[in-house]
Amino acid sequence: MTARQGVHPAWLPPEAFRAIGSRRTIVLGDGPLAGTVRDEVAEARARYGGAGGPPYDLVLALAATRPLPAAAEAVLAESARRSGGPIGDEGFVLARRDGVTVLLAGGPAGLLYGLFHVVRLGERAFGAAFPAEHHRPATRLRVLDHWDNVDVHPVMGQVERGYAGGSIFWRDGAPRGDLARVRAYGRLLAACGVNAVTVNNVNVHATEARLLTERLGDVAAIADTLRPYGVRVHLAVGFSSPVDPGGLPTADPLDDDVREWWAGATERVYGMIPDFGGYLVKADSEGRPGPFAYGRGHAEGANMLAEALEPFGGVVRWRAFVYDHRQDWRDRSTDRARAAYDHFVPLDGRFRDNVILQVKHGPMDFQAREPVSPLIAAMPATRLAVEFQVTQEYTGQQRHVCHLAPMWSEVLGFRPSGPGGPDVAGIVAGADGGLAGVSNVGDDAYWTGHPLAQANLYAFGRLAWAPGADPGAILDEWIGLTFAAAGDLERLRRTLHAIMDGSWRTYERYTAPLGVGFMVSPGHHYGPHVDGYEYSPWGTYHHADRDGVGVDRTRATGTGFTGQYPPPWSEVYESLERCPDELLLFFHHVPYGHVLRGGSTVVQHIYDTHFAGVEEVAAARSRWEGLAGVVDPDLHARVTALFDEQFRCATEWRDQVNAYFFRKSGVPDARGRPIP
Amino acid sequence: MTARQGVHPAWLPPEAFRAIGSRRTIVLGDGPLAGTVRDEVAEARARYGGAGGPPYDLVLALAATRPLPAAAEAVLAESARRSGGPIGDEGFVLARRDGVTVLLAGGPAGLLYGLFHVVRLGERAFGAAFPAEHHRPATRLRVLDHWDNVDVHPVMGQVERGYAGGSIFWRDGAPRGDLARVRAYGRLLAACGVNAVTVNNVNVHATEARLLTERLGDVAAIADTLRPYGVRVHLAVGFSSPVDPGGLPTADPLDDDVREWWAGATERVYGMIPDFGGYLVKADSEGRPGPFAYGRGHAEGANMLAEALEPFGGVVRWRAFVYDHRQDWRDRSTDRARAAYDHFVPLDGRFRDNVILQVKHGPMDFQAREPVSPLIAAMPATRLAVEFQVTQEYTGQQRHVCHLAPMWSEVLGFRPSGPGGPDVAGIVAGADGGLAGVSNVGDDAYWTGHPLAQANLYAFGRLAWAPGADPGAILDEWIGLTFAAAGDLERLRRTLHAIMDGSWRTYERYTAPLGVGFMVSPGHHYGPHVDGYEYSPWGTYHHADRDGVGVDRTRATGTGFTGQYPPPWSEVYESLERCPDELLLFFHHVPYGHVLRGGSTVVQHIYDTHFAGVEEVAAARSRWEGLAGVVDPDLHARVTALFDEQFRCATEWRDQVNAYFFRKSGVPDARGRPIP
Repeated sequence: MTARQGVHPAWLPPEAFRAIGSRRTIVLGDGPLAGTVRDEVAEARARYGGAGGPPYDLVLALAATRPLPAAAEAVLAESARRSGGPIGDEGFVLARRDGVTVLLAGGPAGLLYGLFHVVRLGERAFGAAFPAEHHRPATRLRVLDHWDNVDVHPVMGQVERGYAGGSIFWRDGAPRGDLARVRAYGRLLAACGVNAVTVNNVNVHATEARLLTERLGDVAAIADTLRPYGVRVHLAVGFSSPVDPGGLPTADPLDDDVREWWAGATERVYGMIPDFGGYLVKADSEGRPGPFAYGRGHAEGANMLAEALEPFGGVVRWRAFVYDHRQDWRDRSTDRARAAYDHFVPLDGRFRDNVILQVKHGPMDFQAREPVSPLIAAMPATRLAVEFQVTQEYTGQQRHVCHLAPMWSEVLGFRPSGPGGPDVAGIVAGADGGLAGVSNVGDDAYWTGHPLAQANLYAFGRLAWAPGADPGAILDEWIGLTFAAAGDLERLRRTLHAIMDGSWRTYERYTAPLGVGFMVSPGHHYGPHVDGYEYSPWGTYHHADRDGVGVDRTRATGTGFTGQYPPPWSEVYESLERCPDELLLFFHHVPYGHVLRGGSTVVQHIYDTHFAGVEEVAAARSRWEGLAGVVDPDLHARVTALFDEQFRCATEWRDQVNAYFFRKSGVPDARGRPIP
Repeated sequence: MTARQGVHPAWLPPEAFRAIGSRRTIVLGDGPLAGTVRDEVAEARARYGGAGGPPYDLVLALAATRPLPAAAEAVLAESARRSGGPIGDEGFVLARRDGVTVLLAGGPAGLLYGLFHVVRLGERAFGAAFPAEHHRPATRLRVLDHWDNVDVHPVMGQVERGYAGGSIFWRDGAPRGDLARVRAYGRLLAACGVNAVTVNNVNVHATEARLLTERLGDVAAIADTLRPYGVRVHLAVGFSSPVDPGGLPTADPLDDDVREWWAGATERVYGMIPDFGGYLVKADSEGRPGPFAYGRGHAEGANMLAEALEPFGGVVRWRAFVYDHRQDWRDRSTDRARAAYDHFVPLDGRFRDNVILQVKHGPMDFQAREPVSPLIAAMPATRLAVEFQVTQEYTGQQRHVCHLAPMWSEVLGFRPSGPGGPDVAGIVAGADGGLAGVSNVGDDAYWTGHPLAQANLYAFGRLAWAPGADPGAILDEWIGLTFAAAGDLERLRRTLHAIMDGSWRTYERYTAPLGVGFMVSPGHHYGPHVDGYEYSPWGTYHHADRDGVGVDRTRATGTGFTGQYPPPWSEVYESLERCPDELLLFFHHVPYGHVLRGGSTVVQHIYDTHFAGVEEVAAARSRWEGLAGVVDPDLHARVTALFDEQFRCATEWRDQVNAYFFRKSGVPDARGRPIP
């Protein structure tokens, strides 16, 4: 922790600036973001004794600055020769030659991202010469959505699905007032590549609806605070806002008064927040109001908002998370997994240019294992954002170590049309879409509750910037920055990789098996309850009986969901033989004795993975114990306590899942381990 | 509804007073209760034209009054001759001779109870002559415990397990202020024989603990209001009250300061409420504080409070609902059913004379079917009260018709030592114990949410007074009083009997089978969730697997719970052949193919009862529909809507329970009915 604010510095401890701070650096360029860069460099220099005068070790410059130092001009020329393309507003070119490291940014934000890139490189930025590298983000939209409520919600609390204390923006119905904390947050975001935040929950309640109107000043204060770090503010808005707070009799998107209301409201927003990002909307989903009430569709609803935002360059993100949450569990033909595709594919091409359809990465809801949503490949004429859940609602709620970058990386690298086609990252980039993450940040001293969950936040930003980056390398960056002050960094690095690299698969092993999902306790979603959602209206079933388990989503005999994929996946998932083991129960209902591609039977796989998962947690815990004295004692104690809880909870998962399937199947464990 | 207060008159509509109101009546006796009787008679007379002068049709007199009218003296003499024993404070003698109905009460309360007895009789009180009948309550303590909170509890609300709106005593942290409603409640209680209420929840939170101290005036106001109807007030107190609000460092029952604190607090209570009834305590149960924290036992805890109450004639009711609510579901040797017996039997004889041990009627927790608690027969040297749950936490939450009098009657008539021994009612009466009911009353216009649930409140009082009374006759009384104004009373009577007499068994049929219990949704306890408590810490399991279901509580192979009963039940319950079907799964784990005494297999019985239960609800609903025009339209509409919900919920129970056991057992319904 730093003394400043009593808040952990996350991946920006002072020590991370040692390499820059001890160099001679010049920052060339004007404007507020260049000023931020200049201040960062000055602070680092003050701590580590670097200097501001020539000869420079490091030149940080807006490419358009004139005159540029000779080294910079040379890099610019080299860059043009190597035809890396235009640098772009947020991009930069980096090279080292003749003992000078030169960073040329396409725009002010690029200067900021370039600075933090050099911070990440540390001493490596000042070693051997290297030729010009182009860096630019894969997509323009890299946003964290905060499910933060202004009022404390009677069920969901201050932050819906928040596991890191209260909100950094709001408390008990009012702004939290601690803008220093918000500024520190913006700095962390800039250092991982995030350029936008949504400051309120997609479930917009009465008070929160007024952020768009009489409480707009509260939003503007946040925007002002984040602006120096290139982070733009978005608002989640309620579709019925023209009615409440608006006072109109309708929110019909084709009604002139309604359109005028949105135009007026939006104009006022831009009057106070000129770089406002846009609206996020959850409509006609889980009871939220939407255009259906007026006999209109999603396109009409989204386009109305888009029209209001268009003059100012704002976007509307319209969530595709639309399904029947009052399903009859007896009805096996309705399939929640189909819903987003069925709703939105017919609307492809009907959205305005500044509408972005925001799609959860899987067809259900952020389970530890889902296939990639088929909707992503099925909207070629629509801008798409893929939504990840950084907050660990279904992946251990920041009490379990569950490093999610490998999962996100798998999703981003998935090629819906097979090896020859584009991957998800490419589809999103090609459509000028983006990545959205549900934030895992709260007012906890460690930002994210579990200190190691900071790595998820960091990785989200880095993958949004560079979806093809290796998750292990990203984790490595995070370790190097976060623990820059550690005495035995290499040992720490090895240990943290051993704990975190495989933690998502460990989590998968001790929870719901083979992609079947939703064996969590209803409501709060923490801990196991195998039948918790089995007879519920939520559309989330596993169909276990004494003979077998899994959801038949084939075209041949099931819900036909496999048909929403293009080939080859439509065939792979349809086939009992070719379907990947880890998704088998998502696509097929099989007998317990079905032999997996991995050679084990389904039920034995369940036992094996659940025993293994708990053993892996125990091993991770004991690895962590070995770090006593290597990391800050406070942080060590926090993680140690959380590991105890993870171990308890993993054991509970193991025992409940194993007992459930043993009681159902009657098949004993082949290795004779006790099942309660 | 009457216009008065917009509150339904329940079993005291003006029309119920027609017979008395149209007669010449004299009330002889002094004091406030006699005054209440006089006022009641006067009001009835004013409505129905009766007169106050001789010759009298009805003499209502305290037996000690002198001079008595000749007819009354004659009845007194006859009564002595027939040696009905002393009348007792709350008792009365009733006879009709020579055209005069004479009621002689042993004390003021008896006069009041006698009045309402004559009301119940209606015209039958004034027909043919009949000889002297003695009426007196089976037990002195006939109390309704309100689980009402003063503050709205964040989870449990204003009334814990309340299904009839808010509290009639408290609202949002303060007294409700509507003492007219409290008075009307007291009148209803007197008319069914209840003589005490506990005005706050046994789970005593911070504000409620102060009812004993700075908020005592609020309790006194309730006591003053209920006193004219012979209803005394009890308080639920927190064992740690000497610490908070008391300010002492300990609540150790053997600490002198603690004893002094309780003595002082109790003295202050009696200073304001001279007829205060006593304390109700839930200690060392479900997380409530108790003597265990100080290394003391239940006897020491209860006796300390008893000592404080003794000088004033008060009692302490100490709840026997003590068990491990953090049980490991993997542990099949621990048995919650055993807990109360194991805790309290060793303490028999160690409680002071004014301690009453309050025992839930079953060993678990108010399930629709449980055996009678073995503790009741195992405390010969302890005063016992049996606790019933009038509020329908586990029996449909006043959205389902579930008339509970037949269940309570079965419990009260159960003979723990077999045919030759006393029944539960006799044991309780012999021990100078009592009956306690958890109230089902709230600020709902119908008092109990479901209008037909009023009959449960009425029946509780009547059974507390006369445990041997026939539940059908009690229901008949209730119908006659409540619907005294109905046009076609006989048709209504037949229909309500058809709907209500068997409604508890209907409820049992469509919910948890064969006494296994606890298949409710966790937390709120409404609707089905077969595995909802199966892997929980609450000690409430059914142990269903693919082969069978039920809890082995035998001595031979199970938890040994059957050994807590005396013979013959210790043998009957132990025996798979002799165990009553309806309790089979409470005592035995059996294969699905086990043949019941009734001839069906267990699994087929589950299917049959669940189909039958829903059909019975449908039949009841359609019977109720036929009453349109016979009862008040408001009341008819309320019950009609509730029947729709009951049918929906019963169908859900049927389908979930049947699907669950079909999936587990693989046995199809012998009659080929669809199971989802």
